[in-house]
Amino acid sequence: MFPAANEMQALLDLEPLGADVFLGSSPPSAKDQVYGGQAVAQALVAAQRTAPPDRPVHSLHAYFILKGDPKAPIAYAVERVRDGKSFTTRRCVATQHGRAIFSLEASFQAAEPGFEHALPMPEAPSPESLPAGAAVERLTSFLPASAQADFAHIPPIDLRIAPSSASLGARRLVWLRVIGRLPADQATHSAMLAYLSDMTLLETALLAHGRSLLDADLQVASLDHALWFHRPFRTDEWLLYVQDSPVASGARALTRGLFYSADGRLVASAVQEGLVRRKVAKN
Amino acid sequence: MFPAANEMQALLDLEPLGADVFLGSSPPSAKDQVYGGQAVAQALVAAQRTAPPDRPVHSLHAYFILKGDPKAPIAYAVERVRDGKSFTTRRCVATQHGRAIFSLEASFQAAEPGFEHALPMPEAPSPESLPAGAAVERLTSFLPASAQADFAHIPPIDLRIAPSSASLGARRLVWLRVIGRLPADQATHSAMLAYLSDMTLLETALLAHGRSLLDADLQVASLDHALWFHRPFRTDEWLLYVQDSPVASGARALTRGLFYSADGRLVASAVQEGLVRRKVAKN
Repeated sequence: MFPAANEMQALLDLEPLGADVFLGSSPPSAKDQVYGGQAVAQALVAAQRTAPPDRPVHSLHAYFILKGDPKAPIAYAVERVRDGKSFTTRRCVATQHGRAIFSLEASFQAAEPGFEHALPMPEAPSPESLPAGAAVERLTSFLPASAQADFAHIPPIDLRIAPSSASLGARRLVWLRVIGRLPADQATHSAMLAYLSDMTLLETALLAHGRSLLDADLQVASLDHALWFHRPFRTDEWLLYVQDSPVASGARALTRGLFYSADGRLVASAVQEGLVRRKVAKN
Repeated sequence: MFPAANEMQALLDLEPLGADVFLGSSPPSAKDQVYGGQAVAQALVAAQRTAPPDRPVHSLHAYFILKGDPKAPIAYAVERVRDGKSFTTRRCVATQHGRAIFSLEASFQAAEPGFEHALPMPEAPSPESLPAGAAVERLTSFLPASAQADFAHIPPIDLRIAPSSASLGARRLVWLRVIGRLPADQATHSAMLAYLSDMTLLETALLAHGRSLLDADLQVASLDHALWFHRPFRTDEWLLYVQDSPVASGARALTRGLFYSADGRLVASAVQEGLVRRKVAKN
């Protein structure tokens, strides 16, 4: 009935090997590289498995170290950095072929009350008013032809990009949700948001230059990734991903994102730096 | 001649113990805890010592794990995560009394050209137009009386806070610089900016609530810290630290900062989440 949500869940269903090591795999259709959001999500799942269930994740920081091999399993080894009175800290290193390809540190905290504020959700066209099919296709049509095959396995997430101006500081508004129905637990939705948050964000940095990921002369790759979870949310309901790029320099660009639920609650924040390099022409 | 800059340099002058372990100390006047910016700066220095000198740091991500003991030395152990063709990745864990108190991961890259953009510097009163003495005092006067002694050792950084509105999303503008003259090398200035970047940022989250760090009923502490370095800069010349807090929830607040040189270049960005907890009244 809900093939997309099921595929996503399978991706997050790691195999425990004991001693806080978990094995993850990539979809069979993935060709050349592991999608970055998959590594973030799987490493977070591994960390969650070793954290108290009553302490949801509130932040994570990750580095992409080497391109992942989708044909080989990925070993996620968790280090229990600290179990404190209020906070739990975990580190997870993803290894393939004897080398670290990805590292993540995450922090978990039991719910407690406190000050509440949030930047209001910007004006945005409703997801229903934006074309559906076109936007879903656009997710992979963005990519250079050579990379499209690598991402063909991404389950049909409903992703709708609002038209935006190609000016500096311009915000890009992206509605997204996992098609189908997922379990209600917040741990699943946090991991799923980690998966989704690596999509479309980096391209926001190219907007100011009138460029896109399609441009064959560009090499674009996520370098790091940070997420903060503010309030409970569901990824099988619409989320508005509000993106901007404050700065680019030295072949790197910084991008920021805020996730809002459709009823206007600011539920999570993302920051990512990416490599945006002009390829040197080969003679 | 320049006592402040000298004190700061001494703080960053770690003692190499071999095997990529470095020993740092806190100023003798520090009483109860290690200032967070000191841990970020010292861990970055340790990582820098193991990275190729022609690859400056471009990003770091850190977690504050336990309160540091200023009376004991801090051992900074560096793990050489990767030496790649373009990027070098390092992890550094700070240990005291056999326990990890702080962890940092940083990435280094040789200079290369690429796309350039930056959000423009906002209108700000000049640092000269803001009162000097008062602002320097205000740095510690912010703090609860019990904590003031802990920070009395912070060298007299010239720090001038522009008046700001206490409304949601309000930006706070802070001019700062190290008094005196530092060596010209970018590694020193990057570490110094790491030191400075933990100052005043978290209080920005309290603005929207008309509260301050002075309030005795609040427990405020840095939880994590991330920095991105975009362009060369000097910390012994004025930097404008543009701060805001997009969101607070669950006794945590997220804060963001952009550092501009006085001539308007966006040189670095910061994001920090902090604990902002109302203390439970004791009967």
